[in-house]
Amino acid sequence: MHIKEMSREECFSVLARNRVARLSCARQGQPYVVPVYLVYDRVADEHLLYGFTTLGQKVEWMRENPLVCVEYEEVSALDQWVTVIVSGRYEELPDNDEHRHERLRAHALLQQHAFWWEPGSTARAAAVHRHPAQPFEAVFYCIHITRITCHLATDDPASARRAH
Amino acid sequence: MHIKEMSREECFSVLARNRVARLSCARQGQPYVVPVYLVYDRVADEHLLYGFTTLGQKVEWMRENPLVCVEYEEVSALDQWVTVIVSGRYEELPDNDEHRHERLRAHALLQQHAFWWEPGSTARAAAVHRHPAQPFEAVFYCIHITRITCHLATDDPASARRAH
Repeated sequence: MHIKEMSREECFSVLARNRVARLSCARQGQPYVVPVYLVYDRVADEHLLYGFTTLGQKVEWMRENPLVCVEYEEVSALDQWVTVIVSGRYEELPDNDEHRHERLRAHALLQQHAFWWEPGSTARAAAVHRHPAQPFEAVFYCIHITRITCHLATDDPASARRAH
Repeated sequence: MHIKEMSREECFSVLARNRVARLSCARQGQPYVVPVYLVYDRVADEHLLYGFTTLGQKVEWMRENPLVCVEYEEVSALDQWVTVIVSGRYEELPDNDEHRHERLRAHALLQQHAFWWEPGSTARAAAVHRHPAQPFEAVFYCIHITRITCHLATDDPASARRAH
């Protein structure tokens, strides 16, 4: 197995072709990680991930501490995979004038995909259904990417060299 | 799609049948999440995950702050999946008399599986190969499970009821 660090542009291409990732946040030293559905976007020099969820533990924690880490993986075989690790900053896009443009952008990008696969939101929706007294709050958010690294494993040394 | 929280025993059965998970740790409010290879074990009332890695960012961070979170997922289709979220405490198993028994236990369990798939360790190994001056330190560790939750999504309401 040959492992190489990929270029920054190649890292972003992994984000562009994947929707399911794992989002980690932390409160008072305790990390928390859950699968999420994210859409990648680039605006000039800024790289963003847009997401939609409902009010719950991760939103409460990210409101308190916006530092996050996101992991992507593409596994073809045990010795053939790509992993991407993103460090970023959470920003909520509330339904107000200041955030209207970005919220509409997030909505449009997320809507391109028929199915918003996210255990968090659907589980929450189910919980709300069981406990109608709980508020159901839709949350649009973005993650500003501050750092990204990507590793490729392959059984072909030539591919590993090309990826470098 | 129907979503249910599964029983504690069903949560542990997901850990028992999977090896690849995502491990999250945090330092000074910054979370970090990477794929890892873990083996589940139960000793009386204690539930553990054993892992092997090499010295790098996650070990340095977990030495400083042992609070971790581990995520497992089994995705059959966009509307059929299982996710498990584990909160736990990292403990290193150094090569000394005090930890000999647990280190051997970890080694034996991990050795049952032909391939230790872990991007972190192999990437590190590759890096060491490129920079022979860097130390290569094998690290056995365990995670003491303190909390576990598991959600099942299915398109069959009867399965969801059975899982509850």
